[in-house]
Amino acid sequence: MERLDATQLRTLAAVVAEGSFEAAAQTLHVSQSAVSQRIQALEATVGQVLVRRSRPCRATTAGQPLLRLAGQLLLLEREALTEARGPLTGTPHAPGAPVRTRVAVVANADSLATWFVTALARLPAELAVSFDIRQDDQEHTAELLRDGSVMAGVTAQRVAVQGCRVRPLGAMRYLALAAPAAAAHWFPDGLTVPAPPAAALALAVAPVVVFDRRDRVQHRFIRSLVGRDLDPPVHYVPSVPAFSEAIRRGLGWGLVPEQIAHADLASGACVDLTPGRYVDVPLYWQHWRLDSPVLDTLTDAVRSAAADALR
Amino acid sequence: MERLDATQLRTLAAVVAEGSFEAAAQTLHVSQSAVSQRIQALEATVGQVLVRRSRPCRATTAGQPLLRLAGQLLLLEREALTEARGPLTGTPHAPGAPVRTRVAVVANADSLATWFVTALARLPAELAVSFDIRQDDQEHTAELLRDGSVMAGVTAQRVAVQGCRVRPLGAMRYLALAAPAAAAHWFPDGLTVPAPPAAALALAVAPVVVFDRRDRVQHRFIRSLVGRDLDPPVHYVPSVPAFSEAIRRGLGWGLVPEQIAHADLASGACVDLTPGRYVDVPLYWQHWRLDSPVLDTLTDAVRSAAADALR
Repeated sequence: MERLDATQLRTLAAVVAEGSFEAAAQTLHVSQSAVSQRIQALEATVGQVLVRRSRPCRATTAGQPLLRLAGQLLLLEREALTEARGPLTGTPHAPGAPVRTRVAVVANADSLATWFVTALARLPAELAVSFDIRQDDQEHTAELLRDGSVMAGVTAQRVAVQGCRVRPLGAMRYLALAAPAAAAHWFPDGLTVPAPPAAALALAVAPVVVFDRRDRVQHRFIRSLVGRDLDPPVHYVPSVPAFSEAIRRGLGWGLVPEQIAHADLASGACVDLTPGRYVDVPLYWQHWRLDSPVLDTLTDAVRSAAADALR
Repeated sequence: MERLDATQLRTLAAVVAEGSFEAAAQTLHVSQSAVSQRIQALEATVGQVLVRRSRPCRATTAGQPLLRLAGQLLLLEREALTEARGPLTGTPHAPGAPVRTRVAVVANADSLATWFVTALARLPAELAVSFDIRQDDQEHTAELLRDGSVMAGVTAQRVAVQGCRVRPLGAMRYLALAAPAAAAHWFPDGLTVPAPPAAALALAVAPVVVFDRRDRVQHRFIRSLVGRDLDPPVHYVPSVPAFSEAIRRGLGWGLVPEQIAHADLASGACVDLTPGRYVDVPLYWQHWRLDSPVLDTLTDAVRSAAADALR
């Protein structure tokens, strides 16, 4: 049986993680032509193009299983080394500090902005990990799992990605907020449910703040209120702090995670447009099927932080 | 002289703004094959491929001047219509509410998370704009200006992009923060400047929180302290709220915009590692050279909000 070269696999992982042959060469402390030669040799062994030479570089469909394999080998190797050498002492001045285990995970923007860092902080320091966090829409996080770029992720996708286990985390609750003046201007009669015809007219013309073009949660909420699709004016604001600030400033209404909404409601900066009516978005934790202490500890930390923060 | 078809140009703008032929068709309320035919017809007129059929669709080099032209024509047309029809009354139930003027701008994550929304909120409601905000690294925002995707942006690039005017906005100041326990653990002797050899050793092994692989501000700060490049362990956390939360939770130290840093220093959640020593990142406003009331008003609002928030 053919053998895959570990150095070539590690180089593949570095090219995709760093985004370019040049950056991978820097990280691996080798020349760029060495990186090229290793990738070409690996591609010759497999008989397929493995890396799309885009900016940033991505794994091709053929490259995805090899990228996942490379990440898994690296993780297992680091863990074995850490175990063999004993726990990281944490002494800053120790010469030859161990190379940290890279933990690449993806989460949606609202999880990152609210509860996810709590989970990361629960990992004991002696695990000596380096977090490589990606942010992506919760409907699209599964792509990074599938192509092997990340080992785990918070996703809205409940069907397990190939090679992954999936566990429910609970639901993120969103409340429909607007600044008091904006609410009075656009919804003078309030937004009772089921929405009367006047409310549907108001929802059709009131500006709504949407994270980006992949964020459909506001449009689905409108449909749940009035029973059909509307095409209101939209402000796209792809930043969690800017999103809620845009609502506080009266640019439009929008759905805000309850963790952020509560502060705005308590301070009077916003009002709840539909008291008692909310949107629950179920989230799942998907992770590689791998017997890894780091992945197990991370999974425990994520599930416990999610249990505190989600519904 | 050949003429460019306005409907085809508008279709080009929709394809790039929405990211796909399918989404453009939905926005324009036409069939997807109509979108394809218009783009092909425009490409035949120009004799060049104008749209890279990627996900999302982007303008090719040849398509960039046409995309910018399309955006400029749309903006001018909307402004003329708004002026002809009189100011937007704001009555939510008015039939045939005017189509809003799309204002596509890019800003770096830290500006979006701190002062930029203040500028947007200063635009009078009767301008009836729809904001289409993009977030990108301040060193890369110029790309979206160059390819015509946005009409203006907050950028670190001081050289005017072709067809744009550039104005200085002031500098965003960053302070080096860490949680008190992390500071005591990694920098028991503090971080005086110039850094003694022990501090350089500490900086080489203390984990640092970095936004993403394009964020070099922490590494440049280290070089300014110790006079050479170091390769410390890095946590990548590409979310402004998660970035400062990771520092508060002790995952590493990092450079935080002063607007966010002040709250963490006041609450005692963080300490300033290098009191009196900071990083100032000069920011610029680049916008299309175009006689447009909307762009003029936006520029005034951005300059005034920046004058309040930046150095």
